[in-house]
Amino acid sequence: MTQWAERIELFDTTLRDGTQGEGVSFSAEDKVLIAVRLDRFGIDYIEGGWPGSNPKDAEFFQRIRDVELHHARVTAFGSTRRAGIVPEDDANLQAIVSSGVKVASIFGKSWDFHVTHALGTTLDENLRMIGDSVRFLRAQGLDVIYDAEHFFDGYKRCRTYALETLMAAWEAGAKVLVLCDTNGGTLPDEVYEIVLAVRESIGAPLGIHAHNDCGLGVANSLAAVRAGARHVQGTINGYGERCGNADLIQVIPNLQLKMGYACVEPEQLRTLTDLSRFVSELANRTPNDHHPFVGRSVFAHKGGVHVSAVLKYPETYEHIPPELVGNERRVLVSELSGGSNVIYKARERGIQLDKDSPALKEVVATIKNLEHQGYYFEAAEGSFELLLKKAIGEYRPYFALEGLRIIIEKDDMNDEPVAEAIIKVRVGDAIVHTAAEGNGPVNALDNALRKALVDVYPELARIHLTDYKVRVLNEDGGTGAKVRVLIQSACDGQSWGTVGVSPNIIEASWIALVDSVEYGLMLCGVEPLTTPVRAAAASG
Amino acid sequence: MTQWAERIELFDTTLRDGTQGEGVSFSAEDKVLIAVRLDRFGIDYIEGGWPGSNPKDAEFFQRIRDVELHHARVTAFGSTRRAGIVPEDDANLQAIVSSGVKVASIFGKSWDFHVTHALGTTLDENLRMIGDSVRFLRAQGLDVIYDAEHFFDGYKRCRTYALETLMAAWEAGAKVLVLCDTNGGTLPDEVYEIVLAVRESIGAPLGIHAHNDCGLGVANSLAAVRAGARHVQGTINGYGERCGNADLIQVIPNLQLKMGYACVEPEQLRTLTDLSRFVSELANRTPNDHHPFVGRSVFAHKGGVHVSAVLKYPETYEHIPPELVGNERRVLVSELSGGSNVIYKARERGIQLDKDSPALKEVVATIKNLEHQGYYFEAAEGSFELLLKKAIGEYRPYFALEGLRIIIEKDDMNDEPVAEAIIKVRVGDAIVHTAAEGNGPVNALDNALRKALVDVYPELARIHLTDYKVRVLNEDGGTGAKVRVLIQSACDGQSWGTVGVSPNIIEASWIALVDSVEYGLMLCGVEPLTTPVRAAAASG
Repeated sequence: MTQWAERIELFDTTLRDGTQGEGVSFSAEDKVLIAVRLDRFGIDYIEGGWPGSNPKDAEFFQRIRDVELHHARVTAFGSTRRAGIVPEDDANLQAIVSSGVKVASIFGKSWDFHVTHALGTTLDENLRMIGDSVRFLRAQGLDVIYDAEHFFDGYKRCRTYALETLMAAWEAGAKVLVLCDTNGGTLPDEVYEIVLAVRESIGAPLGIHAHNDCGLGVANSLAAVRAGARHVQGTINGYGERCGNADLIQVIPNLQLKMGYACVEPEQLRTLTDLSRFVSELANRTPNDHHPFVGRSVFAHKGGVHVSAVLKYPETYEHIPPELVGNERRVLVSELSGGSNVIYKARERGIQLDKDSPALKEVVATIKNLEHQGYYFEAAEGSFELLLKKAIGEYRPYFALEGLRIIIEKDDMNDEPVAEAIIKVRVGDAIVHTAAEGNGPVNALDNALRKALVDVYPELARIHLTDYKVRVLNEDGGTGAKVRVLIQSACDGQSWGTVGVSPNIIEASWIALVDSVEYGLMLCGVEPLTTPVRAAAASG
Repeated sequence: MTQWAERIELFDTTLRDGTQGEGVSFSAEDKVLIAVRLDRFGIDYIEGGWPGSNPKDAEFFQRIRDVELHHARVTAFGSTRRAGIVPEDDANLQAIVSSGVKVASIFGKSWDFHVTHALGTTLDENLRMIGDSVRFLRAQGLDVIYDAEHFFDGYKRCRTYALETLMAAWEAGAKVLVLCDTNGGTLPDEVYEIVLAVRESIGAPLGIHAHNDCGLGVANSLAAVRAGARHVQGTINGYGERCGNADLIQVIPNLQLKMGYACVEPEQLRTLTDLSRFVSELANRTPNDHHPFVGRSVFAHKGGVHVSAVLKYPETYEHIPPELVGNERRVLVSELSGGSNVIYKARERGIQLDKDSPALKEVVATIKNLEHQGYYFEAAEGSFELLLKKAIGEYRPYFALEGLRIIIEKDDMNDEPVAEAIIKVRVGDAIVHTAAEGNGPVNALDNALRKALVDVYPELARIHLTDYKVRVLNEDGGTGAKVRVLIQSACDGQSWGTVGVSPNIIEASWIALVDSVEYGLMLCGVEPLTTPVRAAAASG
């Protein structure tokens, strides 16, 4: 990071405010995976949830304690104490303390009308609620980030009281005062003026928490920083209720590349595009091709004459070099750029690929073809590595399929259907023919495959599927559309993703399942019994 | 329109710049329909295309001549004359004249580097090209809007020359000088400062043409107006290449409702949501639920306690009243919701539920139970309404299932599996027994069910599935986890969502599919043939 650039604190609330968005919901496992990724990216604070509000958030805080983060501090969210009680009796504040975090972010009311009409208490009691809650958490050894809810609306209606609430938090020991545009209705020049005025009134570090209801979430965050805020809250991809929160994926490169502030290391910024896609995969939300900085179309160039000028003088047609945020120019998705990327990824896995080797050309062509079909390897490193091994001739199959039939039966409207899979595989010279039931066709298939292989490869008993995701790719096709299945597996603390794509969900699951099993056995150091060359060659 | 508010000229380029976006293409017929709609909405200028560039644009200009517009002026786009020729010999300029429009918008180079390196001519010749072209069009009786391409980048590199190009257009008779942020890389405060500086240098009316590459297209348009621009260019829904153009759907309500400028009549603004959806329908692009001002989720409220406060004091929880832009408040049915939410939602559907009725208690209990199982009604209004009707005894089934079998077969590793569904249903007194194949098991099931019912309910042929989504709920179960299937269906311009949850993807799909068909038939006003009470009662 450049030494002279002023540092902006990044506070991510994808796991809390982001999950308020319609259609976004993460499992506790997803939340841990995202937290690890945010930490690697260089986020300073990761707001994990509201431990007092639901069991899933509590589970996250439990699990994240055993995860080693290198940079980020996990933060628990909650409100100031309820009116008329002491903080010690407030279940929410107690839940924050019990969650084991070292940083709490708590929100309090700034708008007098909300205090008297929504909260139903007095203006003075609200000030005491803020002060008491911050002091209580400080006394328990926590750092406190204070979120001033509805701050801009409150300030515009009753400036004096809004400032008093901030003072209450500041005097009680809050580390930073975050001004929230909770309804998202404030304009950038208002944000600028108000942040400036607050800075003049209170000498505390200020933060901004913007929403996107006017399409100005990013602009408002930048305006606050221009006015002196040094702590910015937002979510990955702008997930959040209504129009979403300020999108960190857009805020960060604007701050760092355009305004000269320091947010993350340049190498970390180069993973911005991957980060955005990773979170959208886990959120099961289609990435936006037009997403500023990271979308698939945003460095795409049309038009013949124009393109040669772009290639010659890219800096005059592109507002930033796409590689700074890990994106790429679309006219340049050439064998060269694709190839160097693959070489880099192969090297990460200890596989040497020469720049001019036929194997590299084959891998690049295969990846392009598969990605065109809808494959996505960012979250499927297992499948990617198997693909590399196939290209360099190091892959040896563990078994071959000789036949598969799945039958699902349902007797009437209310009958729970029964799913059964019958499978025949060749392992070495032996043929195993067996069957299993399951909760559904994919589960039956999974059970049958394991049953067929576990006697020969007992290590399979240690390999578990930890996540199974389905994404419909082209929505227009209705139930005939293509699906992508992503399987996450684990064995002895290691975990890997595999992927399959097909119009048939069974086939897509099968592809991902076979990769999961083979990659898992490879990781466990198991040798294939005998390569069933005959069967593999006979097929397809 | 308020008499005292200053007027902003609106220039829409959805039909020209908007079609540069990947995946957006309009037929000439679509373009005429959109132009009529934009005129009715109150847009001042409708840029129809580049008559010199392609036959489809030429056809549009031909057809729009016979259409009576009440307010808007149709505008043709083109570049300044080529270097070294007279305007009379320039095919592009001639095509503008022949198109029959009364207003031309032509673009010229502002950035010295682009003149010498992309255009390959001299700085002086470029100034002559601008002046000649504007004078030529003026002499033909056209008004000329001058688009200064790459203006902000050019101004930052060579201010003097950028201003000279503007002067050339202004002195030749251009009506308004439009400053273009062609690469979309400029920040709002830069836009503000530069527009202010240009105003001080040149006493001409100024316009802004912003792109969204930094996520600031809307903010930059507002900043330019704050600095004195009175002409704003953009597209409906922000369509356009890369990250799109400034989104007029967001710019207009910000200017009019937040900043007090006059853009369109209040009655016209109330059709903003419809306008946005209309254009997205013709563009065949899924509307964004989180689209500021007009998205489906943007006035949605979650949570029981919060909801009662919203209903009582909406102005303190919503940045504008949704009806001003033709949108509506939605109360989300969620685990937190109590009876008041359900009463409100039932009332929206014309179903009266009394606060103390047993039916309400039953519905609330059923919803809670289903949500606990993983159902999610926010995006499944069809299933929700069927559930209400079942609770108040108004539901009558259209058919009953007598048996269902799905068979999937795969012969070896590389074989594409075949899926077949065999179904037996009772419709009235008849039994229909049939079978169908499909891309996968769910598609086969969908095909078989339609085949079984379409003879009795021919309206089914008009009901289409438009979206099919699968989400895995509890990742710990691996392939045995629960899945939630969400189906979106449409018939004659109406659309509805239905939902099913089960560990078995076939069962989850079946539940959502049955709701889709039954709700669709209900919407089409089809009466159930005969209630197959016997079968329904016998099951479960």
